[in-house]
Amino acid sequence: MTSIGIFGAAGRMGRAIAQVAAEGGLPIAGGTDRDPAGDIAPGIPMTADPLTLAEAADVLIDFSVPGALSAHLDACVAAKTPILIGTTGLEPVHHALIDQAAAHIPVLQTGNTSLGVNILAALVERASASLGDDWDIEIVEMHHRHKVDAPSGTALLLGEAAARGRGIALANHSERGRDGITGARAPGAIGFAALRGGSVAGDHQVIFATDGERIEIGHRAENRIIFARGAVKGARWLAAQPAGRYDMKGVLGL
Amino acid sequence: MTSIGIFGAAGRMGRAIAQVAAEGGLPIAGGTDRDPAGDIAPGIPMTADPLTLAEAADVLIDFSVPGALSAHLDACVAAKTPILIGTTGLEPVHHALIDQAAAHIPVLQTGNTSLGVNILAALVERASASLGDDWDIEIVEMHHRHKVDAPSGTALLLGEAAARGRGIALANHSERGRDGITGARAPGAIGFAALRGGSVAGDHQVIFATDGERIEIGHRAENRIIFARGAVKGARWLAAQPAGRYDMKGVLGL
Amino acid sequence: MTSIGIFGAAGRMGRAIAQVAAEGGLPIAGGTDRDPAGDIAPGIPMTADPLTLAEAADVLIDFSVPGALSAHLDACVAAKTPILIGTTGLEPVHHALIDQAAAHIPVLQTGNTSLGVNILAALVERASASLGDDWDIEIVEMHHRHKVDAPSGTALLLGEAAARGRGIALANHSERGRDGITGARAPGAIGFAALRGGSVAGDHQVIFATDGERIEIGHRAENRIIFARGAVKGARWLAAQPAGRYDMKGVLGL
Amino acid sequence: MTSIGIFGAAGRMGRAIAQVAAEGGLPIAGGTDRDPAGDIAPGIPMTADPLTLAEAADVLIDFSVPGALSAHLDACVAAKTPILIGTTGLEPVHHALIDQAAAHIPVLQTGNTSLGVNILAALVERASASLGDDWDIEIVEMHHRHKVDAPSGTALLLGEAAARGRGIALANHSERGRDGITGARAPGAIGFAALRGGSVAGDHQVIFATDGERIEIGHRAENRIIFARGAVKGARWLAAQPAGRYDMKGVLGL
Repeated sequence: MTSIGIFGAAGRMGRAIAQVAAEGGLPIAGGTDRDPAGDIAPGIPMTADPLTLAEAADVLIDFSVPGALSAHLDACVAAKTPILIGTTGLEPVHHALIDQAAAHIPVLQTGNTSLGVNILAALVERASASLGDDWDIEIVEMHHRHKVDAPSGTALLLGEAAARGRGIALANHSERGRDGITGARAPGAIGFAALRGGSVAGDHQVIFATDGERIEIGHRAENRIIFARGAVKGARWLAAQPAGRYDMKGVLGL
Repeated sequence: MTSIGIFGAAGRMGRAIAQVAAEGGLPIAGGTDRDPAGDIAPGIPMTADPLTLAEAADVLIDFSVPGALSAHLDACVAAKTPILIGTTGLEPVHHALIDQAAAHIPVLQTGNTSLGVNILAALVERASASLGDDWDIEIVEMHHRHKVDAPSGTALLLGEAAARGRGIALANHSERGRDGITGARAPGAIGFAALRGGSVAGDHQVIFATDGERIEIGHRAENRIIFARGAVKGARWLAAQPAGRYDMKGVLGL
Repeated sequence: MTSIGIFGAAGRMGRAIAQVAAEGGLPIAGGTDRDPAGDIAPGIPMTADPLTLAEAADVLIDFSVPGALSAHLDACVAAKTPILIGTTGLEPVHHALIDQAAAHIPVLQTGNTSLGVNILAALVERASASLGDDWDIEIVEMHHRHKVDAPSGTALLLGEAAARGRGIALANHSERGRDGITGARAPGAIGFAALRGGSVAGDHQVIFATDGERIEIGHRAENRIIFARGAVKGARWLAAQPAGRYDMKGVLGL
Repeated sequence: MTSIGIFGAAGRMGRAIAQVAAEGGLPIAGGTDRDPAGDIAPGIPMTADPLTLAEAADVLIDFSVPGALSAHLDACVAAKTPILIGTTGLEPVHHALIDQAAAHIPVLQTGNTSLGVNILAALVERASASLGDDWDIEIVEMHHRHKVDAPSGTALLLGEAAARGRGIALANHSERGRDGITGARAPGAIGFAALRGGSVAGDHQVIFATDGERIEIGHRAENRIIFARGAVKGARWLAAQPAGRYDMKGVLGL
């Protein structure tokens, strides 16, 4: 049985992962949190030291914060333990760190672990490839009031899919945070907008709009359990892979 | 230049087709209508006789009523003129008539002539094939207050795409017009619901729902001009085909 | 402390009510269910006899089935115990039974116990009163795949609010379960459509549509806990009222 | 008969207003545009001079740009002609100019001239007042790809309604253009997001979100004609008022 270690174990996603693992009878090797007193459940050892956890677990799941990623990857490489990364708000520097670690251990990084969202991304890529440049692309998402980064990791994952369908680089074609006198929409842009409020687990919509008609492709998550289930499924799959960088496509057979 | 004849020329879609043809500089051979006094524009000859029109035009477009289809097909076969059929509310008997006519002339029948809806159908088929049987499929549409049939032809077109993705026959798996004590949803059913009101040109949404998450794929038409444009494009394409039955996929290169 | 008895205790809503009561430290007097072996939690006495439960509790909550309502009301009247009824699929005969019981005990009947839906109903009534007869009214709802009745009790509650705003009787102006050749929309009709699938706790939308524009007013429930919270709050309020028939407005101070 | 002058006559809204006035048999006194060669219709005199137009018309309608507002108001005050302003992207300095002009002539300024949106604003104010501070407020809008300012004037109008319902000042509670590491949502904030694409005439949605549930109140415009109709109706009403500042409530009897 694969034992799971949880970075950020006392956070919203950390607790959901512990719940799913417990329901599935999977052993939890332990967890870390900024506040190691933030125990998540009786009998789960909490530590402040990533390496201790990485050595105790068969695979790690990380839904914490970008600032902790470097230490987490170092610990996993040192312990030769695979790691699934669902942390959002990553910058290019973090992706470079992931690439480096993936030369030594299996690393799966994804903006979203649910089946639905990953199917959605495949649909968005195809729509983007089928519809001409006169169809403008906009991505809007809503999350709970506690989320600290925008756009969501899932919105960026969908933006990457749309850009791939068009054969363009997302970094050069994003229009984010429109406010004030913005001027007309840039041709070929992919727009992002972020809504925050209540306890929304995560809603996403990609809109393709042209003269006289619109196509709207979206996903609604009712709760975090679907993400935790996908993460646990992905971690178990990852534990059996060779070193390298992965996303959810391999897990889901897409 | 391909000249176009319009069955049901004084109806909402008939008028939109005449407008699009005129804007594109295409000759209009004439039109029929239940009330031949319902002239649609100066200089367009109106007649009550389908054969007269079928002999005068290079291709016919029909957005009239199911009850008139038999006479329209007879006229087109007699005149050896291709026909594009966008009439909705067709029953199996009408589809059999279309198959018979298609042995002699080119016939294109479609529930929707817009690019967006036909792309949508391709996305729905793929989603339906990718998502397991534990994802329930529902289709909801809204049209203007004058529409007389439900579900819309486009909703049925999307239902056929969803059924094809699952490898099932839509006729055996439809749940339409839920009202009263319906019992729980039948496993594998494809549900349909129809909203009517105002001047809505046509909104459609296909919902895939499973435990904890939903995918929603939809299309919004702002006006009828997009359908008329697709019909005129389809008619011009059809005029160059051999006898046979077609849908919009050939026109749109899908 | 008000002790709560639960009719239909082993059902989806029954279990949610037991959870909310337990979290709030409220005593649960017990529960009934068609299958009294369907225990909901250790220490909660289950019985098949409504009168036993009605005598043991300070107030009853009923989210069971219409067929059981008569026996439940008889038990409450005999025991002089107030009852909150959230059962859906009620017919006129059930409302007559409620009126009779309300002459003797406090009875609160509602299609929905959440704050959001009851605020929504107030907004719908106002919009319906402000907008002229040329704005068509449509109500669409989505619930999980296990729901057996359509439209939902909440959709009917919203339909009543819309009808009240117009000064008409809903019973004479409903258009439900459109399918086939329906003819054009009847002027002044209030349309209903029901979607079913997945685990949706309850989404409702009221659409006002006229020539060229639409107003859409909706509510999304992420889970059943919000309904259970409202029911427990309502039951505690009801226990302090004199005999009579009530809805959620009094509870929520609307 | 009230004759209408149109500032910004060759723009999208200017042309729609000319069309509505012509259909209603109202005389058009003329129009101005940055490019006076951009004639809108035969027989309508175009000028580059606001004063010439203000002296020729009984009432002015302005859907141009903020930078032109000062000159337009000066011309109207000099000619003693009322003016309806639908220009968006106004800053506090423009509102101060409007207040000054309103001491001398009737001035109606609004973010939206449609009946539906103004009813919506009344519903938003009431919902905002009824729902507690634990309901977060978000406003999202979508407009065509040519729109140069964000959020839309209508979104701001709805934000003002929401703030009024809460008894707060919008200026101190706006969260606009979220992007990057934003931190958690500020308690009491009203969030704005802007989508751009295709030919969308104007969609708006106000979302109230709390723990476990959401209320969504929105408006969809199918075309610009509804705004032009409201503007013409408002201009005719304004022509009969004394000097002062007005909004659409008086026109619509709200």
